[in-house]
Amino acid sequence: MKYIIIGAVAGGASTAARLRRISEDAEIIIFERGQYISYANCGLPYYIGDVIKDRNKLFVQTATSFANRFKADIRIRTEVTAIDAEAKTVTAVNLITGEEYTETYDKLVLAPGANPVRPNIPGVDQEGIFTVRSVADTDYIKAYIAKNDIVRAVVIGAGFVGLEMADNLSALGLQVSLVEKTCQVLPAVTDPPLAAIAQQHLREKGVLLHLDTVVTSFRKRDDQFEIKLEDGELLEADIIILAVGAKPDLSLAGKAGLTTGKAGGIRVNEFMQTSNPFIYAVGDAVEFPHPISGQPVVSLLAGPANKQGRICADNMVWDNRYPYRGAINTAIVKLFDLTIGVAGLTSGQLMRSGIKHLVSVTHGNSHAGYYPGAQLLTIQIVFSPEDGQLLGAQVVGADGVDKRLDILATVIKHKGTIYDLMEVEHAYAPPFSSAKDPVNMAGFAAENILKGRARVMQCTEVETLPEDATLIDVRTEAEHQCGTIAGAINIPLDNLRLQLEELPRDKTIYIFCQQGMRGYLAQRILIQNGFRDVINICGGYYLWKAYHD
Amino acid sequence: MKYIIIGAVAGGASTAARLRRISEDAEIIIFERGQYISYANCGLPYYIGDVIKDRNKLFVQTATSFANRFKADIRIRTEVTAIDAEAKTVTAVNLITGEEYTETYDKLVLAPGANPVRPNIPGVDQEGIFTVRSVADTDYIKAYIAKNDIVRAVVIGAGFVGLEMADNLSALGLQVSLVEKTCQVLPAVTDPPLAAIAQQHLREKGVLLHLDTVVTSFRKRDDQFEIKLEDGELLEADIIILAVGAKPDLSLAGKAGLTTGKAGGIRVNEFMQTSNPFIYAVGDAVEFPHPISGQPVVSLLAGPANKQGRICADNMVWDNRYPYRGAINTAIVKLFDLTIGVAGLTSGQLMRSGIKHLVSVTHGNSHAGYYPGAQLLTIQIVFSPEDGQLLGAQVVGADGVDKRLDILATVIKHKGTIYDLMEVEHAYAPPFSSAKDPVNMAGFAAENILKGRARVMQCTEVETLPEDATLIDVRTEAEHQCGTIAGAINIPLDNLRLQLEELPRDKTIYIFCQQGMRGYLAQRILIQNGFRDVINICGGYYLWKAYHD
Ligand SMILES: Cc1cc2nc3c(=O)[nH]c(=O)nc-3n(C[C@H](O)[C@H](O)[C@H](O)COP(=O)(O)OP(=O)(O)OC[C@H]3O[C@@H](n4cnc5c(N)ncnc54)[C@H](O)[C@@H]3O)c2cc1C
Ligand SMILES: Cc1cc2nc3c(=O)[nH]c(=O)nc-3n(C[C@H](O)[C@H](O)[C@H](O)COP(=O)(O)OP(=O)(O)OC[C@H]3O[C@@H](n4cnc5c(N)ncnc54)[C@H](O)[C@@H]3O)c2cc1C
Ligand SMILES: CC(C)(COP(=O)(O)OP(=O)(O)OC[C@H]1O[C@@H](n2cnc3c(N)ncnc32)[C@H](O)[C@@H]1OP(=O)(O)O)[C@@H](O)C(=O)NCCC(=O)NCCS
Ligand SMILES: CC(C)(COP(=O)(O)OP(=O)(O)OC[C@H]1O[C@@H](n2cnc3c(N)ncnc32)[C@H](O)[C@@H]1OP(=O)(O)O)[C@@H](O)C(=O)NCCC(=O)NCCS
Repeated sequence: MKYIIIGAVAGGASTAARLRRISEDAEIIIFERGQYISYANCGLPYYIGDVIKDRNKLFVQTATSFANRFKADIRIRTEVTAIDAEAKTVTAVNLITGEEYTETYDKLVLAPGANPVRPNIPGVDQEGIFTVRSVADTDYIKAYIAKNDIVRAVVIGAGFVGLEMADNLSALGLQVSLVEKTCQVLPAVTDPPLAAIAQQHLREKGVLLHLDTVVTSFRKRDDQFEIKLEDGELLEADIIILAVGAKPDLSLAGKAGLTTGKAGGIRVNEFMQTSNPFIYAVGDAVEFPHPISGQPVVSLLAGPANKQGRICADNMVWDNRYPYRGAINTAIVKLFDLTIGVAGLTSGQLMRSGIKHLVSVTHGNSHAGYYPGAQLLTIQIVFSPEDGQLLGAQVVGADGVDKRLDILATVIKHKGTIYDLMEVEHAYAPPFSSAKDPVNMAGFAAENILKGRARVMQCTEVETLPEDATLIDVRTEAEHQCGTIAGAINIPLDNLRLQLEELPRDKTIYIFCQQGMRGYLAQRILIQNGFRDVINICGGYYLWKAYHD
Repeated sequence: MKYIIIGAVAGGASTAARLRRISEDAEIIIFERGQYISYANCGLPYYIGDVIKDRNKLFVQTATSFANRFKADIRIRTEVTAIDAEAKTVTAVNLITGEEYTETYDKLVLAPGANPVRPNIPGVDQEGIFTVRSVADTDYIKAYIAKNDIVRAVVIGAGFVGLEMADNLSALGLQVSLVEKTCQVLPAVTDPPLAAIAQQHLREKGVLLHLDTVVTSFRKRDDQFEIKLEDGELLEADIIILAVGAKPDLSLAGKAGLTTGKAGGIRVNEFMQTSNPFIYAVGDAVEFPHPISGQPVVSLLAGPANKQGRICADNMVWDNRYPYRGAINTAIVKLFDLTIGVAGLTSGQLMRSGIKHLVSVTHGNSHAGYYPGAQLLTIQIVFSPEDGQLLGAQVVGADGVDKRLDILATVIKHKGTIYDLMEVEHAYAPPFSSAKDPVNMAGFAAENILKGRARVMQCTEVETLPEDATLIDVRTEAEHQCGTIAGAINIPLDNLRLQLEELPRDKTIYIFCQQGMRGYLAQRILIQNGFRDVINICGGYYLWKAYHD
């Protein structure tokens, strides 16, 4: 059996390696347009930021080591320019010699990845304005920074790559401005309140945020860029990074007549097979139904690409026996001293799809509060009001975010519920967690909401309250003095039972504390004392403050 | 409704707090023999080790703060000495005044915890020999260390508490010897190979391990202890810590005529109700069927105690509606710079129960190898040879152990399989993981074993090989030179395809590499080249070496 694989990084190289392991006698030819195979795309921002110092570390395999170990014919600097799906041939061009030739295949794998979007803004094509996708891009950026006197950087786009670049350029000592079209960072994958915590941190770290605006032009004078924003502001910079997303590379798929889909990727069935039975596709270039929403999505993530590669090889060799189940797009990013991560769907996405859901935000310590070094983390979960199915999670904090996210992602992927969160049996000793992990706590709080024992409102809704709303701050007097929500009356939780008579029984009572827990306790006391309409502000003053800062 | 709760720490206090939240008008009386409620038992070793410096941090609540917040009648220094289950009364003794009185209840909760075992060894009852269970114990130990000139400590028992004490006494600068009856640390919850990695680390950190022996007597002369071991050795010490386990406190249960079970705990049904319908019980004192084995087990762990407390309260108020599903006893311990953790069943336990299972050991980086600071961690999983159900997991390493364990525990608890591990969609960015997490890798390797594509033998079985076994070290020549298994021939993996003719086709071929992965690749090459009988040594030379050190 003769296999051709196009693209030799996450998806392609993984397919090839597994193919060899399960089929020692297969003929495997891999075409790679670039100079390198199997490199760590995900490491590129950190190499730019000098966090990864040794360039060689970016190469998990070289063409030679891979060819040797996996007995594969690897043709780097060779671009496939066309696929003849009828004839089962590809046309390849050696980018060094210019030689063009065809190669036949029995089965073909498309793993061409995605192309960074280069927005059509006047002046975008000048030297000093970069995208970050390949090793070559990275080398250009490093060289440009080394050669020029770079002090200020502007990053356009506050998605994962944009944020990593902001972090890493700051690590180099640059003054970084971040321009983002929407009014929050990570707009595609987080809801505003948790994003706001990240924004607070970015500002604290000196990143200048320009949200809710777009670049209208780039102008260069004397090696300096002037970046004009829609809101009228003019930024100056010595280097510009474009990080406004990437789109599946459909060029070959188009030529081969493969079906593409609503999400902009190559359509594959559960066996990673395209509309042509002899052509499979994996990685950034494909779309696949989201396990929770059922809607097609692309996953521009290395984990799915690697896993699809393995499944793809199995299905090519063993005739479509191993279904892929799709990705909930778990993703994470380090932002200076903070980490923010997501899995599944956001409240915003669900709202736009008209799917009913509930939202709960809780905070917890990364490990036992009495053990040194515990740090606060915040978990938002969204879940079904019917059966409690967990639909999505967002976590932000300084430590232990990845752990909680992995647990949440595992439950989401299993189609688990908030009840499963209550039962998660995590490893507890003081350096690692608390007797009830923040993930358990998220489950408990969600159960209370789901069962109607705790009515909540989101911090985003507070501004819609009428002026004369009864708003009770149940924190201590000292906390209240340090800042509160306008119009709030202070009744510390531990006094509440004694001051019931001061509260109106005919009005809705809105409650908040610092993090939400005391608010919940207050709510329980009031409800059981006959106050019918008591609402706790989800995530407490802490979240409200981050959102309103 | 009048509730009495006996014991006011993890299980009792949690029950009381939830009870109040869901039942504002309940009458709640809590009896606690000790001086303190709601304290962090789990923090005690770290307080002894001066890692937690402020004693007040150990108290999550005080009797006063708890009474106030939760409107509960807390009677500290008051011991319940008898229960009259017929009359529904308890007899209580005020330990300060000596006053004895009875109190009636509608429903009673037993949360008395467990008692540390004090082995019946000559000389065990002398001053300077301590158990570690309560704040009082801890105060005694701290005071003893402060008052005396303590240089050497002997810890008896290498379970979780023993290991934490070894770590923390070392942190104080003491020379620590650890005596353990079995031939490994954590004998009840780990299998020998992973325990061996911990043992290596303990030795590196200067802990003197005395495995496979017991203490036969303690003698004190001039403030110094002589500890005689069964193997003839004589240890000297200034302080001795007994950490040979704890047993459910059944004293009151016995008096109340409650049914106790095979595992030595109070029997409860899924609603945490004892054999008497008006008496519930939670925490260390109860036994419950293990979700995987179905056998009753006690869980001497804070997580289950806290969660049971909440469920117990719900069932008392809402008439047995919320089933508890049991604990897989996920547990973890920091050991100097290492962490070791477990969930579910061990291979040893399964073997003793006659349950067929497969074992796989893999190693992986705590995060991307190319990002600074990645550390090796080792995962052992045990799983069903029929359907791949995950039955247990053990993880050891310097970083990221808790995260992997939590994912594994979540899958075990969901009755998930090794296939679920393959699909775990963890959060990946370079500081947090790799595109395929070590947990995915554990799943892949297990699948290969389960499907018969990769036959493995455990490192513990290597010594049973015949002298003339064909043993191939597929590591590089340099690695081979630095140490190998006696009798092994070196054929580096990347030469293997060229040297096939050198290998016997009529004999079993045993293969190993450093970690197992290259051994697996070699195995795939050989099998597909017609060698029928090829076995890879699970966990590679790394694990073999730890086990044989
Ligand atoms: C800066 C950056 C940071 C990232 N960080 C993370 C992260 O932290 N976590 C995460 O999960 N994901 C991250 N990703 C995403 C991740 O790298 C991708 O999802 C993954 O690499 C996709 O794999 P792929 O095989 O589909 O495509 P790629 O890895 O992009 O490989 C496609 C290859 O195909 C080659 N190719 C394309 N067309 C042709 C052709 N016609 N002929 C020959 N060769 C061709 C290309 O040259 C390319 O090398 C990051 C990506 C970038 C760019
Ligand atoms: C040193 C140490 C370290 C630990 N580390 C960890 C860890 O890292 N992770 C983990 O998960 N678990 C750990 N544990 C275990 C954990 O603390 C227990 O599982 C948990 O506290 C059990 O809760 P409980 O309510 O059943 O019992 P306890 O918390 O022990 O509370 C029982 C209380 O009942 C009182 N009592 C008993 N009888 C009577 C009576 N007749 N009248 C009045 N009062 C009575 C006792 O005085 C006691 O205060 C550790 C335990 C110890 C001792
Ligand atoms: C380098 C690359 C080709 C490796 O692919 P791979 O060989 O499939 O992956 P690994 O090296 O992780 O090896 C995994 C294999 O080893 C096996 N394995 C791992 N540890 C093992 C052990 N201790 N014992 C036995 N087998 C083991 C696994 O089961 C798996 O084999 P299988 O798929 O046949 O079951 C591919 O990962 C790659 O190109 N990576 C870089 C590009 C990239 O991912 N970029 C984006 C992220 S930055
Ligand atoms: C102190 C102690 C009594 C607290 O018990 P508790 O009140 O049940 O637990 P917590 O303080 O964690 O609060 C949990 C409650 O707050 C709610 N909550 C937490 N965060 C919330 C938020 N942000 N918004 C709303 N509710 C929140 C939870 O839903 C839960 O309420 P529920 O059970 O009614 O659903 C008990 O944990 C204890 O005694 N601990 C010390 C002893 C111990 O555990 N030792 C062993 C370990 S060292």
